[in-house]
Amino acid sequence: MAGRIAARLAELGIALPTPAAPVANYVPFTVTLEGRLVVVSGQVPTRNGVVAHTGKLGATVSLETGQEAAQLCLINVLAQLQAAVGDLDRVTRVARLGGFIACVPEFTQHAQVMNGASDLAVAVFGEAGRHARSTIGVPSLPMDAAVEVEGMFEIAP
Amino acid sequence: MAGRIAARLAELGIALPTPAAPVANYVPFTVTLEGRLVVVSGQVPTRNGVVAHTGKLGATVSLETGQEAAQLCLINVLAQLQAAVGDLDRVTRVARLGGFIACVPEFTQHAQVMNGASDLAVAVFGEAGRHARSTIGVPSLPMDAAVEVEGMFEIAP
Amino acid sequence: MAGRIAARLAELGIALPTPAAPVANYVPFTVTLEGRLVVVSGQVPTRNGVVAHTGKLGATVSLETGQEAAQLCLINVLAQLQAAVGDLDRVTRVARLGGFIACVPEFTQHAQVMNGASDLAVAVFGEAGRHARSTIGVPSLPMDAAVEVEGMFEIAP
Repeated sequence: MAGRIAARLAELGIALPTPAAPVANYVPFTVTLEGRLVVVSGQVPTRNGVVAHTGKLGATVSLETGQEAAQLCLINVLAQLQAAVGDLDRVTRVARLGGFIACVPEFTQHAQVMNGASDLAVAVFGEAGRHARSTIGVPSLPMDAAVEVEGMFEIAP
Repeated sequence: MAGRIAARLAELGIALPTPAAPVANYVPFTVTLEGRLVVVSGQVPTRNGVVAHTGKLGATVSLETGQEAAQLCLINVLAQLQAAVGDLDRVTRVARLGGFIACVPEFTQHAQVMNGASDLAVAVFGEAGRHARSTIGVPSLPMDAAVEVEGMFEIAP
Repeated sequence: MAGRIAARLAELGIALPTPAAPVANYVPFTVTLEGRLVVVSGQVPTRNGVVAHTGKLGATVSLETGQEAAQLCLINVLAQLQAAVGDLDRVTRVARLGGFIACVPEFTQHAQVMNGASDLAVAVFGEAGRHARSTIGVPSLPMDAAVEVEGMFEIAP
């Protein structure tokens, strides 16, 4: 029988992808403090192994596309998180999301872009999905990704 | 009777503002690990609901103004922290501050800007305020803020 | 008798430097949660008190030099970590590394640069060195450093 969060993902029409392999000598997540804390590596908006959204906000990437990119980053974070904990029902809190928005220096709508990730976190986890977050602009990201999202999660004992 | 840190804030002439509401679908802080760990979302230099310091270091924002902006960010972080823990006396350690400085590519005085936040943390908490920190430049921040500061705190059991 | 990690460092020909003093009012590391969690402040590629690698990837700094810079940042992180825990054998996990790459907006090889740090972490700690990481571009760093690396570590009880 599917868990509560798995059912909620299905309801939202979201199929978590096979977690992406890291592009270098690190791992997509670590589990520490007797399994209570999971850190998920920064995820870019990869789909089927390809970065689906490249370029910069305020230049070649629209606000709407940036939001889609942020949402896709979070889907990839959740795929890694599921690989880390087995069952997403064990997540007791999205402790923190970090959002990195590739943009031109004049761009100011970082928060709106990152909402693509934040709204999904709350849609999936409900109250436990309400997270602290920091969102910043960056001049560029690995593989020319438009957005990157990292996460820290509290897991049930 | 006011707590030790509340008294220290008064001594420094600092009145913590009403914590700013997040600009999107997230929360200003999370409390995890049985109340031991508080993460405060990135705060910009808001005063009375308005971003008081916009622009970029090395261009339209002076070093002194940048330091004031960093200090104001930390005041907003402390306001959120107080809302999280009730009494700031319960803070046993400022574990980490992250400082994001909006600047032109030629700017190199990020550390001096961030000292506006760090000096206040130590002034308020004393030894417990001595924190790890990472300070970086960014091309732009939400709402054109000049500085953004996030925090991680250890709370007494 | 030297510890396992000290022996491994010697084998790799790495002598940890005297930890660099912070450039401002903060500390190079914090130890929280009953000694279980160490946060190391962002380290730049300092050697003998001087930033050895300045400038930007994609402009004045080559990929190879950037990788050396990232490796040197990690050596400085490890020096701080050793000061924090006494014996690096007590490190049970490199929980997270954050990599900040000073670069021009067109740069896309951030991951390759950061591998200079990641490869060393795994070479030193083996399985316990396999870490979560987030790597981003930045327009500039303190003291014009080419790279900055921060770390979070789990320590044995």
